[in-house]
Amino acid sequence: MIIMKTVSEMGNRIGNIFSLTSFGESHGVAIGGVIDGMPAGVKIDMDEVQKELNRRRPGQSSIVTARDEKDKVKILSGVFDGVTTGTSIGFVIENTNQHSNDYSNIKEAFRPSHADYTYTSKYGIRDYRGGGRSSARETAARVVAGAFARQALNQLGVEIYAYTSQVGNICLDKDYRKYDKSNIESNIVRCPDSEKAQEMIDLITEVKQEGDTIGGVITCVVKGVPVGLGEPVFGKLQAQLGAAMLSINAVKGFEYGMGFDFATARGSEVNDAFVCEAGKVSTKTNNSGGIQGGISNGEDIYFRVAFKPVATLLRDVETINEKGENLTLHAKGRHDPCVLPRAVPIVEVMAAIVILDNYLMNKTVKL
Amino acid sequence: MIIMKTVSEMGNRIGNIFSLTSFGESHGVAIGGVIDGMPAGVKIDMDEVQKELNRRRPGQSSIVTARDEKDKVKILSGVFDGVTTGTSIGFVIENTNQHSNDYSNIKEAFRPSHADYTYTSKYGIRDYRGGGRSSARETAARVVAGAFARQALNQLGVEIYAYTSQVGNICLDKDYRKYDKSNIESNIVRCPDSEKAQEMIDLITEVKQEGDTIGGVITCVVKGVPVGLGEPVFGKLQAQLGAAMLSINAVKGFEYGMGFDFATARGSEVNDAFVCEAGKVSTKTNNSGGIQGGISNGEDIYFRVAFKPVATLLRDVETINEKGENLTLHAKGRHDPCVLPRAVPIVEVMAAIVILDNYLMNKTVKL
Amino acid sequence: MIIMKTVSEMGNRIGNIFSLTSFGESHGVAIGGVIDGMPAGVKIDMDEVQKELNRRRPGQSSIVTARDEKDKVKILSGVFDGVTTGTSIGFVIENTNQHSNDYSNIKEAFRPSHADYTYTSKYGIRDYRGGGRSSARETAARVVAGAFARQALNQLGVEIYAYTSQVGNICLDKDYRKYDKSNIESNIVRCPDSEKAQEMIDLITEVKQEGDTIGGVITCVVKGVPVGLGEPVFGKLQAQLGAAMLSINAVKGFEYGMGFDFATARGSEVNDAFVCEAGKVSTKTNNSGGIQGGISNGEDIYFRVAFKPVATLLRDVETINEKGENLTLHAKGRHDPCVLPRAVPIVEVMAAIVILDNYLMNKTVKL
Amino acid sequence: MIIMKTVSEMGNRIGNIFSLTSFGESHGVAIGGVIDGMPAGVKIDMDEVQKELNRRRPGQSSIVTARDEKDKVKILSGVFDGVTTGTSIGFVIENTNQHSNDYSNIKEAFRPSHADYTYTSKYGIRDYRGGGRSSARETAARVVAGAFARQALNQLGVEIYAYTSQVGNICLDKDYRKYDKSNIESNIVRCPDSEKAQEMIDLITEVKQEGDTIGGVITCVVKGVPVGLGEPVFGKLQAQLGAAMLSINAVKGFEYGMGFDFATARGSEVNDAFVCEAGKVSTKTNNSGGIQGGISNGEDIYFRVAFKPVATLLRDVETINEKGENLTLHAKGRHDPCVLPRAVPIVEVMAAIVILDNYLMNKTVKL
Repeated sequence: MIIMKTVSEMGNRIGNIFSLTSFGESHGVAIGGVIDGMPAGVKIDMDEVQKELNRRRPGQSSIVTARDEKDKVKILSGVFDGVTTGTSIGFVIENTNQHSNDYSNIKEAFRPSHADYTYTSKYGIRDYRGGGRSSARETAARVVAGAFARQALNQLGVEIYAYTSQVGNICLDKDYRKYDKSNIESNIVRCPDSEKAQEMIDLITEVKQEGDTIGGVITCVVKGVPVGLGEPVFGKLQAQLGAAMLSINAVKGFEYGMGFDFATARGSEVNDAFVCEAGKVSTKTNNSGGIQGGISNGEDIYFRVAFKPVATLLRDVETINEKGENLTLHAKGRHDPCVLPRAVPIVEVMAAIVILDNYLMNKTVKL
Repeated sequence: MIIMKTVSEMGNRIGNIFSLTSFGESHGVAIGGVIDGMPAGVKIDMDEVQKELNRRRPGQSSIVTARDEKDKVKILSGVFDGVTTGTSIGFVIENTNQHSNDYSNIKEAFRPSHADYTYTSKYGIRDYRGGGRSSARETAARVVAGAFARQALNQLGVEIYAYTSQVGNICLDKDYRKYDKSNIESNIVRCPDSEKAQEMIDLITEVKQEGDTIGGVITCVVKGVPVGLGEPVFGKLQAQLGAAMLSINAVKGFEYGMGFDFATARGSEVNDAFVCEAGKVSTKTNNSGGIQGGISNGEDIYFRVAFKPVATLLRDVETINEKGENLTLHAKGRHDPCVLPRAVPIVEVMAAIVILDNYLMNKTVKL
Repeated sequence: MIIMKTVSEMGNRIGNIFSLTSFGESHGVAIGGVIDGMPAGVKIDMDEVQKELNRRRPGQSSIVTARDEKDKVKILSGVFDGVTTGTSIGFVIENTNQHSNDYSNIKEAFRPSHADYTYTSKYGIRDYRGGGRSSARETAARVVAGAFARQALNQLGVEIYAYTSQVGNICLDKDYRKYDKSNIESNIVRCPDSEKAQEMIDLITEVKQEGDTIGGVITCVVKGVPVGLGEPVFGKLQAQLGAAMLSINAVKGFEYGMGFDFATARGSEVNDAFVCEAGKVSTKTNNSGGIQGGISNGEDIYFRVAFKPVATLLRDVETINEKGENLTLHAKGRHDPCVLPRAVPIVEVMAAIVILDNYLMNKTVKL
Repeated sequence: MIIMKTVSEMGNRIGNIFSLTSFGESHGVAIGGVIDGMPAGVKIDMDEVQKELNRRRPGQSSIVTARDEKDKVKILSGVFDGVTTGTSIGFVIENTNQHSNDYSNIKEAFRPSHADYTYTSKYGIRDYRGGGRSSARETAARVVAGAFARQALNQLGVEIYAYTSQVGNICLDKDYRKYDKSNIESNIVRCPDSEKAQEMIDLITEVKQEGDTIGGVITCVVKGVPVGLGEPVFGKLQAQLGAAMLSINAVKGFEYGMGFDFATARGSEVNDAFVCEAGKVSTKTNNSGGIQGGISNGEDIYFRVAFKPVATLLRDVETINEKGENLTLHAKGRHDPCVLPRAVPIVEVMAAIVILDNYLMNKTVKL
């Protein structure tokens, strides 16, 4: 009889009807997942799926990590003659450009503000190469599932976009309606205000040169959601969206509608008055962010997601190892000075997964 | 063949191993729920359970609603001779002081920033009395489940407390360590700073006199959580805590650790350096808020929850009814001018439910 | 730090979209549950619900236990003006006619073929009165949920009936089409063949006089299920039905279609040939029992459920107690000599729960 | 706005804590899955995993299909330096020896007693090659997950074995204790009685020559299960085992302990009397099959699983196509005349998945 570290991990799955179960470590053979509950009969454009992956891909610009991962997705099942069959969709993305020896120096070290210590404590073992399972590389699997969800949502008239709204002290106005989404992809930081975008790029470049990193905020907007999505009581739409966003690496905060600004507001100032025009109910203002009582009300859903600065610094860092000994680390891998530009598509796909799942949960049926 | 509005509601349950499935409308016969996965063999102090309910209870002070609900909980199963048996625990709280005729005027009206419109749209029907299922009265069931969870957590050395840290523009410092938790219950707004507490009370009183309402922020601290709670990838501890908080009525934002303040920070300033003293690993700072990579690291977990002002104003409000006609509402019920004081115990119990559930998911076993 | 027997119980819930979470011990305050996912807008006939409970009720005839439980159900939420609202439905059935002192002699005894030993071993504690949570009294909660499901299914044209097809050596023919369902309730054993019914009643009466008990088989038929219910791979309709039946107290076997008789058959003899008449696809024979590849094919679904004899004998029984000491038990409670007559409605309601749940999971949506 | 056939499939996952989410069609790129909840720190012997796959593999003997699938499994994550890390385990088995053109003739045909008609009806589309998702090829993914589970169970002292106990009219005695498990793998039909094994082989050979198929029964025994596994009420151990077995292709019945033979028994004959020797509680007989009240009692768990004859006959078969037209099919693929020999390892691995999952759900913790 030996003693094994035995811990149940119940967290590799998201979604109720439309779901993703993911797997994969940063420097393992491959990452991937199983998409379940995808509606049957949806024509899938694989170029679009790959395009989403490319937006998340390392090496795409001067302000993100230089790792050159191809991130080519391979669909293994569930799509027949280009159309979804309703059966589960397995997929893999091979890990091709991993430099595992870059990480030999952290084999026994606990990097500050990383998951090395918590994973080792929880499981008694960890794949130390590039963060293993705790690496943000895992989010590539989310992008595939989200790209499938988005192709179903497109047909439903639902549109989702996100953008970098803050890097360090450089902020956009909180009102997303002031910005033209068609500008987002026009710059490498994915900010719809060209002037602010350049300031953000300059700041990230400066931070990068110092071997430092910087945080920020992403704003996400979901248009065209019908009235009725979201499940009371614990399954409120904002609770599901919040959990999805807070499950992204480096996310530290979530607010929707006016969010934390509600704290200083009076009800008389911020209640959203109803209007009915030509039989269509809407609200004059949308401080609520498109959700009332946990259920979408047909207005735009919008929310903000706060990211901490990347923990890996390209400079000497004092820390400890598994034995509790002090040591100095100097990260050798290729890392992002700011996670925001690559996180924009991740926020979008997580929103797509949640919205499609709730769409499927909310079906009205003729009995 | 008739057509029924048919919608699946999957949201009345929270938790994986320790779970609550709740039921009940504001003005129905009773509210209640089933607690499942409660560890067997825990001695339950029912006075403590009732005390938690009393902290949430209406009518407890001059700054909350004057409704005089007794909120006496009745345990129907799962506790034998005062000890939990491991079987499911059914409980009910009767609705005794409901004035349903207070609500006759809103039978067909959609109150602004309430759930009347979204529930009616989703289900084709709603119990309009006092908000029905969307009423915050539902949170009383959470308090019972959380009180059970807390009694198990007490034995594990886990302590949870929350307090009102902001009402309108009156804010405490974000550093919870500056405040003495023993002061929290010393005032009716549940703020550990007596001076600020009085300012908050004055503000709420003023707002109430104007028939208006005001928002705020609650800070919650969880001490004594062992290293290892939380499930990667989608089940990160912050995702579960965030979802739990965002499922509370009127909550619009959640952040943990430095939260949104991380957006303006550099990695070099905010990374939490490790130290090892006498074999015990800890961090010099705790900007991360006690969670790394989705898993607790043994430091204090702390987070902030933003609440919007209560939507019901005690003044004339213009709105529409189900037919889209304009009308003027004047709320006649008894309502809170500020939800914060009564929400403090709700935040605590939701944290307790999540922490105990994760504790049970993280069991280390000798194989 | 004390040591608690701590076991997670994840088993008090059945169903994915339409679900029941149940609670209650035989001699506790009440049993009950929460129905979640009930479609909104269904008019509920509470007399029908009560009628189903009466069919399961003790004391209804000379061949079942003489316990006189009223089993009046009280709906606490989710039904407004007689119509379901889509919110969760809490309900309780009070335990009114319990003679707890009947059980004082078994407080420390482990009754043979009961759950006393396994519950005590698993949880370290048990409510010994009348079997506690392991009592078949728990099935009354299932009847309530199933009665709600059945009222939705009625509107969908789905009909479910079951009958006693075997008691001891007295068997009906396996072909359910030979029997007229309108005869089932015409006798107290719930067997559609009047002659066999009388033989069964005589046998049960004889067995009862000897203080003994006897097993049997119930056959269940589900008509009007549309093509398409059931989820591959692990959620095959037969797997869900089988699990539901095997979760009923005293059930030891489940087979559908030809079941175990398939073992001796050749494919050429038992394959169900397709025919298409007037555009409608059906099969000439239905050896498969209405399910192909885990999915309903539009034919009648039928299955058989084997019950063991009730474990409680009204005679001296040798056994052991918690300390391992030998003792002689003589059951004093009022018990069923044969569980079949009262189990017929339980089999029906479990089928109703599974079929409605799968109906809701199989919704076709216009995207 | 187009109309899509849209169905949620929630069935590709089994297990609560230890779970498998599977994917893959018979003639797609690959089949595979994600194992979640595998305990960390378990040393994995990949040769043993492959050996299990080889037992299920086509082409292994003269009485099974001649398809020569290599079924080499490739682990993509979750195992580091040969040891499980607690993170999710992705794996794939490439489909290498598929002759898709073998199936061109069934593209529009509905084969009798296959899933062609039900899949097409449910999803509006199907991958017709070799049965697509409904093919028993899917069970290879189960074997991988079960092989991992078994390696954990081995360390816990749990042993699982199954054998062919009936083919057509050739039956073994129901008492598994009469047979020596070490004989099971000594013959190609996997029957521990050499003489009966030869009769079975002869029968299958004869049936095969006639282009026909034959059904049978597999008996499974689980030894070394501790007291306490299984979750009341709906999660009874027999319900979980039954669902797992009934989810295997071609399974039509499940019974445990005395099963259907209980129907003719009296309680006084079949109750399992307790004995206590040297402080160890056991039962004199084990008619119950090792489970009481849904919870394991420490005795051997044993059950029987009925399989129908394979639906594909190697002879002319009359059927219809999607348009309802009559046609004659003559199967050209390579098919099993009897599924039993290859199903023996599948029954074992499904038992392993259920038992390990329940082991993890039943952990006793010091609080």
